[in-house]
Amino acid sequence: MEKRIKNIFNNIEKKPDVILIKNSDEPYIDDNFFYVTGLTHGLFEGSVAVLFQDGSIDLIVSELESEIAKKAKAGIKIYRSEEDFDKILKDSISSSSVVGLNFEGISQKEFCKLKEKLSGIEFIDVSKSFEKTRLVKDELEINSIKKACTIADKVMENIPEFLNEGMYEYELAAEINYLMQKNGADKPAFETISSFGKSTAEPHYTHGDVAVKNGDLVLCDFGACFKKYNSDITRTFVFGKASADHKEMYETVLDAQQIGFETAKAGVNANEVHHAVESYIDDTKFKGRFIHSTGHSLGLAVHDGGARFSDANKFELKENMVFTIEPGVYLPGYGGVRIEDVILIKKSEVEILTKTSRELIQI
Amino acid sequence: MEKRIKNIFNNIEKKPDVILIKNSDEPYIDDNFFYVTGLTHGLFEGSVAVLFQDGSIDLIVSELESEIAKKAKAGIKIYRSEEDFDKILKDSISSSSVVGLNFEGISQKEFCKLKEKLSGIEFIDVSKSFEKTRLVKDELEINSIKKACTIADKVMENIPEFLNEGMYEYELAAEINYLMQKNGADKPAFETISSFGKSTAEPHYTHGDVAVKNGDLVLCDFGACFKKYNSDITRTFVFGKASADHKEMYETVLDAQQIGFETAKAGVNANEVHHAVESYIDDTKFKGRFIHSTGHSLGLAVHDGGARFSDANKFELKENMVFTIEPGVYLPGYGGVRIEDVILIKKSEVEILTKTSRELIQI
Repeated sequence: MEKRIKNIFNNIEKKPDVILIKNSDEPYIDDNFFYVTGLTHGLFEGSVAVLFQDGSIDLIVSELESEIAKKAKAGIKIYRSEEDFDKILKDSISSSSVVGLNFEGISQKEFCKLKEKLSGIEFIDVSKSFEKTRLVKDELEINSIKKACTIADKVMENIPEFLNEGMYEYELAAEINYLMQKNGADKPAFETISSFGKSTAEPHYTHGDVAVKNGDLVLCDFGACFKKYNSDITRTFVFGKASADHKEMYETVLDAQQIGFETAKAGVNANEVHHAVESYIDDTKFKGRFIHSTGHSLGLAVHDGGARFSDANKFELKENMVFTIEPGVYLPGYGGVRIEDVILIKKSEVEILTKTSRELIQI
Repeated sequence: MEKRIKNIFNNIEKKPDVILIKNSDEPYIDDNFFYVTGLTHGLFEGSVAVLFQDGSIDLIVSELESEIAKKAKAGIKIYRSEEDFDKILKDSISSSSVVGLNFEGISQKEFCKLKEKLSGIEFIDVSKSFEKTRLVKDELEINSIKKACTIADKVMENIPEFLNEGMYEYELAAEINYLMQKNGADKPAFETISSFGKSTAEPHYTHGDVAVKNGDLVLCDFGACFKKYNSDITRTFVFGKASADHKEMYETVLDAQQIGFETAKAGVNANEVHHAVESYIDDTKFKGRFIHSTGHSLGLAVHDGGARFSDANKFELKENMVFTIEPGVYLPGYGGVRIEDVILIKKSEVEILTKTSRELIQI
């Protein structure tokens, strides 16, 4: 992981002497801890990673995590009490006067505590460098994402087989999560969305105790987490025979997604991708019914580093960035259609990492 | 939820004019947002809750969340752009000069942004009040926790039936998660631990691709999340016939847990519970092999409000607090035993909310 750490320092203009990653308790665990260690398991509540300019790293961990921590190529320092922790932390950065912190990944409380423990130190925000560095994936990361995509694909392809009349949304979610884990996922990438009927019009609805009925739109949005890396795929089915309205919504979203695939490539600005997809939808009868960004960077986090295809996000796409392309059309009280795939940015095109068919399937 | 909000203000010495809860992106969502709204679904990335001293509440949400937000008894304000958000936020606190924030639940970055957006406002840390208020559960909360415990119990009781020779750790985790969801859990409360053999000695190991074999200790630690509230239970089995060593470890932990149950009640200090349990283990041949706290508060968060049974945690137990009691003994390279249950603190005893048998089961 030496190269990742060097890249993080190289992406900072005014380099700090060291960078500290400080985890709090769940869910406030900074995923950069896993980025810089390459560890694929463990919780690491309260742990610290100290990154040095030469690419080396020290980990300050409790006894609870010491066995797992040893799997990282790092100096391991085990603390047994808070006083112990404070002493080890001070020793670790003894020759530093400027310390970099990820302001996005540390709570205001932890920040105040660190300032108190390490008086006289200047703290600078290096969150932008973590974001920038992580946007471009290395081979190890791409392999894990591809594996996570394969798992999600396998499950999505099977949904039409096991979705039966009368099945509840929460039952479908349970089946999806089960099959992902049986196929090697460590856990779902996020809370699985399996919505039926008019709830499909609420992009952030997850699942409830509603049974599927004939004529329902069925929206499934989920991902697998494999060795800390995530996939994210959405398909919308029709339970029964698709109406003309269903087909029109579906075709619009599918065409919009195709435009996204064709626009995204190295050298293009992220907001151009969003603009192309959104304008296409806004030129149809579904004007104004696409109400979120066109996609997001994907990796260790599902929304990786906050980089999105949206109006407000202006950055240049580069080779080996990984995103989702997920246009949707939502008609409140009626239903919604979303189609989402994972793409890898290449020089003059994209590689679509999720392979499930995008045809409209009537179950 | 009016009473919860009033309690939060009442637990602050120098009351702020309003309290803001500001969510960032996943996983940096402040679960207090759900505490004060009573909402049981939705993601609410970027959303804000404004709490007023009279117990009323305003929610500032994007269009994505507006339908779900309407289920809360709150004033709903929908923003469509960042400028829009800033204007609504400013209007919401227009007559306030002191604003309370949960420093534990807001990132340093979000804090800096708020300070910039709301110049001239004094921000004070009200995290201690959220913690203190949430420690004592109301009826609605206790009912959800009980339901979450019932789900976890049902699954735990079935493990001896479906754990078969050659099954992998990750397969067992998949079965556990599946059964929890089939029984009504929204999701697992945390990453399910299902470890075999010597990995049971690593308290934070989750699961890998190791198959169960005769003579293995099998440690299962999981919980159900039901309407945002969690359960947390651990049982250790022996696959095959338990050895004399297994039995001795098991009996020690079981007796230690019983001492925990007998010590915890209203009026007792939290560290006394830890002290009683730890001293018991330290008086056996397993001295020093109990390497974590005796338990933690449980509720909307699995480690709710940071309150634990440990040496460093000094606070008085009160009626309607909910904790786990989870002693363990860990022998590196050999294996570990942990037994964990959820308790509700009562006036002169505890009610054990998880009902699965604590006898040593040989599978």
